[in-house]
Amino acid sequence: MSNPSLLILPGDGIGPEVMAEVRKIIDWYGAKGGLTFDVTEDLVGGCAYDKHGVPLADATMAKAQEVDAVLLGAVGGPKYDNLDFSVKPERGLLRLRKEMDLFANLRPAQCFDALADFSSLKKDIVAGLDIMIVRELTSGIYFGEPRGIFEEGNERVGINTQRYTESEIDRVARAAFELAMKRGKKLCSMEKANVMESGILWREVVTKVGEDYPEVALSHMYADAGAMQLVRAPKQFDVIVTDNLFGDLLSDAAAMLTGSLGMLPSASLGAPMANGRPKALYEPVHGSAPDIAGQGKANPIACILSFAMALRYSFDQGAEADRVEAAVEKVLADGLRTADLLGEEGVQPVSTSQMGDAVVAAL
Amino acid sequence: MSNPSLLILPGDGIGPEVMAEVRKIIDWYGAKGGLTFDVTEDLVGGCAYDKHGVPLADATMAKAQEVDAVLLGAVGGPKYDNLDFSVKPERGLLRLRKEMDLFANLRPAQCFDALADFSSLKKDIVAGLDIMIVRELTSGIYFGEPRGIFEEGNERVGINTQRYTESEIDRVARAAFELAMKRGKKLCSMEKANVMESGILWREVVTKVGEDYPEVALSHMYADAGAMQLVRAPKQFDVIVTDNLFGDLLSDAAAMLTGSLGMLPSASLGAPMANGRPKALYEPVHGSAPDIAGQGKANPIACILSFAMALRYSFDQGAEADRVEAAVEKVLADGLRTADLLGEEGVQPVSTSQMGDAVVAAL
Ligand SMILES: CC(C)[C@H](C(=O)O)[C@@H](O)C(=O)O
Ligand SMILES: CC(C)[C@H](C(=O)O)[C@@H](O)C(=O)O
Repeated sequence: MSNPSLLILPGDGIGPEVMAEVRKIIDWYGAKGGLTFDVTEDLVGGCAYDKHGVPLADATMAKAQEVDAVLLGAVGGPKYDNLDFSVKPERGLLRLRKEMDLFANLRPAQCFDALADFSSLKKDIVAGLDIMIVRELTSGIYFGEPRGIFEEGNERVGINTQRYTESEIDRVARAAFELAMKRGKKLCSMEKANVMESGILWREVVTKVGEDYPEVALSHMYADAGAMQLVRAPKQFDVIVTDNLFGDLLSDAAAMLTGSLGMLPSASLGAPMANGRPKALYEPVHGSAPDIAGQGKANPIACILSFAMALRYSFDQGAEADRVEAAVEKVLADGLRTADLLGEEGVQPVSTSQMGDAVVAAL
Repeated sequence: MSNPSLLILPGDGIGPEVMAEVRKIIDWYGAKGGLTFDVTEDLVGGCAYDKHGVPLADATMAKAQEVDAVLLGAVGGPKYDNLDFSVKPERGLLRLRKEMDLFANLRPAQCFDALADFSSLKKDIVAGLDIMIVRELTSGIYFGEPRGIFEEGNERVGINTQRYTESEIDRVARAAFELAMKRGKKLCSMEKANVMESGILWREVVTKVGEDYPEVALSHMYADAGAMQLVRAPKQFDVIVTDNLFGDLLSDAAAMLTGSLGMLPSASLGAPMANGRPKALYEPVHGSAPDIAGQGKANPIACILSFAMALRYSFDQGAEADRVEAAVEKVLADGLRTADLLGEEGVQPVSTSQMGDAVVAAL
């Protein structure tokens, strides 16, 4: 049997730095952990634009379709802010999501015990928080047509289209129910069915899929109320399922509740491939942070935990995923902090690379 | 000169209860405050549906167009959950917004000193918080066509359209810049220009309008980052301007930061009428809260402060608005709390009506 294959796309800003630490973990697995990956590396985002004039070359796209999993760092930076919409760094990421058909974006918002004080929320509101947001990732207003800026009379009009078919809602709802079955058996679906017809269809299909999961307690909430409840009492939630745009805002708000964005991974999953593994892309929730890029200040943990998600969801190595997560918890409990996590009495920051080394040592 | 006119639409759930307390304030102004309003009352929402089969009768709509200001309680309730989309209680509210062309929705998120402990956020993060969200209210995905649920192949598809013209963006941006000039001269505009063309146009037009307000420091933020920053460090903001849908979520999240939803008013303003006053509707941010309706538990302060906003924005009575706000702060400082604000040592709740009486006494 051939080794599992990984395409690594470090991207822009702090992407390459944090990915270098993941490489250490991958190397550790090859040398001592009994798991060898076939790794190739390529460009995405601004660096791909610099080289190819597009944020994702066709050859890279083709590679992404072939491998067992893609690991992405981050894309974007001020240098690319004035590029045309069609070649902005983000389009590279969006192309990967769309062409790999990664419809289920899993965004855990978990509060690490050692870090609960970093939240802007009161400790008792967030300590022990562990929610999973399942965001639809390949449809909705991100991709709907018509879209663009058009002339109308003597002015311009900006148009985007929210579009969801029943089958698109069905498959992401199923992914969310499956996760809920493995967790607390509680699923909350969020939309604006009081204002949007696409939300009415969303609610109807999710309810229908729920009939196949009688053990899961399903509830529905308008997305604005959802934003409120995430701030007020996030621990009321277990799994949340929502559309692409609401998911973008709600998962970022949920991530921020934990107080440590540098800690949060994500997985984007599609349909099973011939080998039974789902198409998959893993990336940290944080962005490319151009302001601190190249200074050894970035926290590599979100990217490391994204690799742990790959172990769990792509390679069926749940025990190894647990091991990486435990190693991360250990270094945090030992008091190691990168520069994004300062403020505690007497703590000196470690560099990106020191943090990566510590995680490897803890494995 | 005739008296200023007010149309009162108490609506559903706790709407009538909280509005009854506003009536006490209006009566006080008539008897002792030297300000007499011509008040008419009518139905909106579920109660209008019960009587007329529609959530807003044409005659009510016509009245709303004629008066100097509309004051609304809240709409909706479980009884109406299964009504057809076109006659749901919310459609009454949306019709008022659309036909009165109330394009600028002002949603202050203010943390009252006496109540900072009620926030789920740490006290130092929210104490003294005072931001103003200006949400576009008559366009975007709430009203764009095409919309609906359509057959496509052998399944259904739910469609809504985000649409913004340059002039729609221009006028709400101007409203926001004007407010910023009267406040901290700082405006942050939020959209998803990295993903949506309507966001690109939004950013471009807001930037252009900014040239007319060189004193205002204008910044732009993606709406997902905005959701994060509102949770992380809300005091960084002064005025925020954003579209209808983002504004719905972001203003609710911001409202919840303060910990006391029962305290937050809103104003929805349109173009000036012949008498120079803007078309205007005032309503509390909270909903109809059917679970506590009729029990004397509701907090009338949000509705009272909505009336204060009417004094300020419709009737040019800034000093009287200050007076009502000061009366509210006094009763809070005196320790009066409705049932939504319990938890402090030894505090007994007062009823909706006791709270209203106390505010009148403090005037
Ligand atoms: C970079 C951007 C296109 C992206 C999105 O809006 O989906 C990001 O915010 C995310 O959530 O992954
Ligand atoms: C009741 C509903 C239609 C409304 C909206 O979505 O605008 C409400 O949430 C609001 O924010 O005023």
